[in-house]
Amino acid sequence: MKFASFDALRSACQDLPAGSPAAAEAVARRQDTLTKPQGSLGRLETLVAWLARWQGRDTPDLDRVKVLVFAGSHGVTAQGVSAYPAEVTAQMVANFAAGGAAINQLARAAGAELDVIALDIERPTGDFTLLPAMSEEEFLTAVGRGYESVEAGTDLVCLGEMGIGNTTAAAAIASALFGGVDQWVGRGTGVDDAGLGRKMAAIEVAVKLHGEVLHDPLRAAAAVGGRELAAILGATLAARHKNVPVLLDGFVSTAAAAPLMRLHPHGLDHAVAAHCSAEAGHRGLLAAMNLKPLLDLGMRLGEASGACLAVNILRSALACHTGMASFADAGVSEKG
Amino acid sequence: MKFASFDALRSACQDLPAGSPAAAEAVARRQDTLTKPQGSLGRLETLVAWLARWQGRDTPDLDRVKVLVFAGSHGVTAQGVSAYPAEVTAQMVANFAAGGAAINQLARAAGAELDVIALDIERPTGDFTLLPAMSEEEFLTAVGRGYESVEAGTDLVCLGEMGIGNTTAAAAIASALFGGVDQWVGRGTGVDDAGLGRKMAAIEVAVKLHGEVLHDPLRAAAAVGGRELAAILGATLAARHKNVPVLLDGFVSTAAAAPLMRLHPHGLDHAVAAHCSAEAGHRGLLAAMNLKPLLDLGMRLGEASGACLAVNILRSALACHTGMASFADAGVSEKG
Repeated sequence: MKFASFDALRSACQDLPAGSPAAAEAVARRQDTLTKPQGSLGRLETLVAWLARWQGRDTPDLDRVKVLVFAGSHGVTAQGVSAYPAEVTAQMVANFAAGGAAINQLARAAGAELDVIALDIERPTGDFTLLPAMSEEEFLTAVGRGYESVEAGTDLVCLGEMGIGNTTAAAAIASALFGGVDQWVGRGTGVDDAGLGRKMAAIEVAVKLHGEVLHDPLRAAAAVGGRELAAILGATLAARHKNVPVLLDGFVSTAAAAPLMRLHPHGLDHAVAAHCSAEAGHRGLLAAMNLKPLLDLGMRLGEASGACLAVNILRSALACHTGMASFADAGVSEKG
Repeated sequence: MKFASFDALRSACQDLPAGSPAAAEAVARRQDTLTKPQGSLGRLETLVAWLARWQGRDTPDLDRVKVLVFAGSHGVTAQGVSAYPAEVTAQMVANFAAGGAAINQLARAAGAELDVIALDIERPTGDFTLLPAMSEEEFLTAVGRGYESVEAGTDLVCLGEMGIGNTTAAAAIASALFGGVDQWVGRGTGVDDAGLGRKMAAIEVAVKLHGEVLHDPLRAAAAVGGRELAAILGATLAARHKNVPVLLDGFVSTAAAAPLMRLHPHGLDHAVAAHCSAEAGHRGLLAAMNLKPLLDLGMRLGEASGACLAVNILRSALACHTGMASFADAGVSEKG
């Protein structure tokens, strides 16, 4: 899968299916017959309707849940923006393969299958304080890798990432799409005050250097993003075209998917923000995108860790929907 | 198990074990070696330390998770405070037994065993707008039922309830313990404006009628509470004495456990608020008790539904703690 140009990708982002509102309505109707006050399961009820809408069936499934973690290397690490050395990206990919990372444990606890997709990690993107992070060709290749990673027939996909330096790229994208700089810059893996200053400066330089293309969400994502962010954008788009609901992970994943919302007002209706991370810019980014996170547990790891945690909430919601008795079946009196 | 008097119960509430701070420290030390930035799993890290402290061992287990749902009937329903008829309490207990309620599905999804304890539901408590809800004897019997429901060797207990009218009792207890009336009164299962007015009036009458005993958290819980609330208090106390961490469910469960905090400043350190419910008074009650909920999903069902959802968060947290590789083992570079 490869889009031929920014324009071809833009078209695919603007011509989006609407899911099945009828399936969502069928869920809501059944919910109102179950032995609980109407609406009393709160978001558990609306989440099942959301699954139904985007899977396109009245009774959704969660048998095939996939976790996709995209990894990329970032030239901007040369500016000293991270607390960890750049080689940690490859070391963590090896740790994922060996089963030793948080996401390995969390995917298992969520009953989900984990795929790690390393995107040319031996070849960092350009340092975007000096030149574009990616050419159009490189960007579209990464988007395509993400797109083809989502298989039709998947019931739910969790999207996450790993890449030393990538909160800097995410902040730069947020800055390009929503304006401002400071409010998007946080400590990532735990950079100190001096590093935070370098991070802020790098983004300010990049915003000036690439100013001419930043009005275009896709060119902005190529100029100041990263391969794993481009892949998340591609995966989010693919999920929409393939009837797969999406759980977005933290700050980086949210910023990565944001261009789709910029290109279509309902571009992320098939995605739920799994959590609000402790990374400084995330709460504001979610608010700017009108996304209401499911969890808020002070996590800031990435790797799809927050998305995986939310899977079990969806499983519980679905279990209630499919397993509960109705007022009529159970002989319970209705509201007086 | 039966406490002989208010005073005997009060002593048990004031003489509380402190768990094992050493076990919590052992967890924190190990967390700092695992392949993630320190602290980046947020509350997942502190929750494992909390489990360790209150189970009293360096590596906590979640093999034996129990859900206790206490059911009671309330004389105050005669005042028209609920949207549902009083017989729904018994009907829902039958629904629990038949496996048709939300909590049946949620307990299964949490890998937890469900016990429903119906407390003399054929015999409602007194209408506390006219007389005390329970005598000392009745109250202590219900506390004892809750106490003996918690078995030593349980790894975690989720406490919830069912009882038409019990948000009125919970609001009355909150009023007695923390002052004010309006801020504790919500719509429960969905009472209309007229019913909400009757609920408010009932609590105002009760606060005046029982004013003399409301300074005493236990006498207040007897005068304006309910049997299932008394049982939750007893279960929370038992859990502390038997090394069992507690997940509290919603507004009613939180109010039910509140006397233990009033009698001992660290009385609820072994309990975590699983969620903030949509019942109007819950957010304020959690704040008054300095409890930070894990989830906030707009639920307002009771039955331990929110507590069950939080179990899987604990399972995921524990899976990370026990399954992750250390930086040294995985050959990942540490912070630069």
